[in-house]
Amino acid sequence: MANISQKARLMPASAIRKLVPLSDAAKEQGVKVYHLNVGAPDIKSPSCALDAVKNNTMDHISYTNSAGLMELRKGMCEKYYKKIGIDLEPANLLMTVAGSEAVDMALKITCDQGDELVVMEPYYTNYNTFCFMNGITLKAVPTDIRDGFKVPPMSEFEKLITPRTKAILISNPGNPTGTLYSKEEVLALGELCKRHDIFLISDEVYREFCYTDQPHFSAMNIPGAEQNVILVDSVSKRYNLCGCRLGTIASRNADVMAAAMKYAQARLCPPVYGQLAAIGALDTPQEYFAAVREEYIRRRDFAVNALNSMPGVFSPLPMGAFYTIAEIPVDDAESFCRWMLSEFRVNGETTMITPAASFYKTPGKGINHVRIAYVLEVEELKKAMNILAKGLEAYPGRTI
Amino acid sequence: MANISQKARLMPASAIRKLVPLSDAAKEQGVKVYHLNVGAPDIKSPSCALDAVKNNTMDHISYTNSAGLMELRKGMCEKYYKKIGIDLEPANLLMTVAGSEAVDMALKITCDQGDELVVMEPYYTNYNTFCFMNGITLKAVPTDIRDGFKVPPMSEFEKLITPRTKAILISNPGNPTGTLYSKEEVLALGELCKRHDIFLISDEVYREFCYTDQPHFSAMNIPGAEQNVILVDSVSKRYNLCGCRLGTIASRNADVMAAAMKYAQARLCPPVYGQLAAIGALDTPQEYFAAVREEYIRRRDFAVNALNSMPGVFSPLPMGAFYTIAEIPVDDAESFCRWMLSEFRVNGETTMITPAASFYKTPGKGINHVRIAYVLEVEELKKAMNILAKGLEAYPGRTI
Repeated sequence: MANISQKARLMPASAIRKLVPLSDAAKEQGVKVYHLNVGAPDIKSPSCALDAVKNNTMDHISYTNSAGLMELRKGMCEKYYKKIGIDLEPANLLMTVAGSEAVDMALKITCDQGDELVVMEPYYTNYNTFCFMNGITLKAVPTDIRDGFKVPPMSEFEKLITPRTKAILISNPGNPTGTLYSKEEVLALGELCKRHDIFLISDEVYREFCYTDQPHFSAMNIPGAEQNVILVDSVSKRYNLCGCRLGTIASRNADVMAAAMKYAQARLCPPVYGQLAAIGALDTPQEYFAAVREEYIRRRDFAVNALNSMPGVFSPLPMGAFYTIAEIPVDDAESFCRWMLSEFRVNGETTMITPAASFYKTPGKGINHVRIAYVLEVEELKKAMNILAKGLEAYPGRTI
Repeated sequence: MANISQKARLMPASAIRKLVPLSDAAKEQGVKVYHLNVGAPDIKSPSCALDAVKNNTMDHISYTNSAGLMELRKGMCEKYYKKIGIDLEPANLLMTVAGSEAVDMALKITCDQGDELVVMEPYYTNYNTFCFMNGITLKAVPTDIRDGFKVPPMSEFEKLITPRTKAILISNPGNPTGTLYSKEEVLALGELCKRHDIFLISDEVYREFCYTDQPHFSAMNIPGAEQNVILVDSVSKRYNLCGCRLGTIASRNADVMAAAMKYAQARLCPPVYGQLAAIGALDTPQEYFAAVREEYIRRRDFAVNALNSMPGVFSPLPMGAFYTIAEIPVDDAESFCRWMLSEFRVNGETTMITPAASFYKTPGKGINHVRIAYVLEVEELKKAMNILAKGLEAYPGRTI
């Protein structure tokens, strides 16, 4: 009997997706499940993106350059990044199999096995997974839910930085918190990285989902940090094309991009249909983003108000992305989420949310936190939140 | 100044793609380049696959299950594998980002860092790349070009097997050799793996490209090796949809598939448009494969005859895939390939082929070997081979 590797055995299962078998089982019983667990929006993709795929005239789908089609890379620079004030040339970026691959590449490029990566907790759980896969130690600076998860003083980061620290990885706006960092916060992180000669990996896949009047400040625009910053970006997320699996890794550091190209070549090329959609998406009118933003603000306001009106529940008001982390009055959020899927129904319906403990490194933290993705229409959110409220009242392990 | 990781620095560049800048430069000078370097066929994809994408009615492209759409996994079992005599259920397979990801997953699942993988050389160069990325030691059993690269006696494998050997990885039919292994050879490898309690990873992405009258014998059909065999497969290759980036990892070993699912979840889902194409491709009529096969036999016969009629050149007659390895009378095949792209033209045209040294582990082996992908129409192949023959005559480092 051949045995699988120890690493494969110890590999963490996805915290976000591991409850899927329970929701599948509920659906098989005929239960309707409101999915607030995955960042899979129901918002329409721009028709220019969808049409670019539908109207293609290729008679076979061949490989592209490992970095992606030059037409797309040029278009990204000229039609997208330039417009939002980020100055890039095609040599500074290549197309990846979504943001996921860009994160994995950025980690491989910056950290050797045994090196350390610093993040803020709560963090996107797959940051930890990719660290595990690459033998990198993830260290987490705590942030505070009561404070809206804002960036702690740089001294808190300094405490964790050792000679093995090779990069700080931020998500801005943040998954899972929805927190949008200020220009000052991003500049301070850039200064810190420059001072320590380490990389700042900035995951900005939710850049177009910001709900303040101030423009998003990209780490790519930190003066003098050209050699330190690596940008993780996503076409899939930006245009509600999650399934296209197309993203970007970008840097003005030539060594970084040369290494990225080697990793890109090992997997041959990014998905071609996704690249076609991305080329089409470059013509997305500004009104599209404005309408999406308005819709998310409506959903966020509804969801966060509904959460804060439930006894013992607290959620900050997130200013970006489409998530919030809420504290809920239960013994253990994962048990609660499982119980909702397996046992609790309101008129044959239930709500699926994500337990947040695995978004934390510090043991015991986040045990009563959940991530809510407000990716449904307000009418649906109403029903989902009503079920959640009733579930919290009825849950045997409630703490109030 | 932040420095990239040592591993990223040492990461091997793609042997197949590293000459691309030279061919790009030639093209910019207006030179026509015949590409015999990449396995990117010019054959049309089945229209049922292309239409499935063009006629989709989705208004946004959401994630699918990390394992791929159930409709596709079921369809693969019932409409494809069953037809070719491989008995699989959806739980035995999941969809990957092409064969590349399936290979990477199979290595992660079977080998820890420092473990050993045994392959036959010459091997697909990215096997070595994925081993490097995962800290796995690749060991190679030599095969002989004069013998058509057939499987050596099992005693040659035994010599390399140590307690750290966790798997044997084969490519059948083979890239880069085009060699098709017999049922007896595959059974012997299965026996060997069972005896040593190690995995047999069988990369069968070229299964539909076999040029003998005997059916391809899949490692999935080795009796009693259910717990040892992991299948790597590719939808992209099979249907000339290379750019779709869609493949399969399959095994009847439940631990293997549970681990595969964890890796799949870390990258969220396989490309959705590729999955649509794959669902459409399930209706590909048998005549499609028959016509493709006939076309490749024509090309192979032409290419191999042309090669063997060049003084000092030897190529075996490959029975599968669309590659052959040829021995050429030069001091160093990489220098020759570079010289062809940079300096040699016939009426403003040149031919691009792949130096094969990086397909070998044994130092010095393959130094005068090249891989030829016979992926062009015979009329084009004629011109490409004529240029190659003239190049070999004119090359300053020729050895005859």
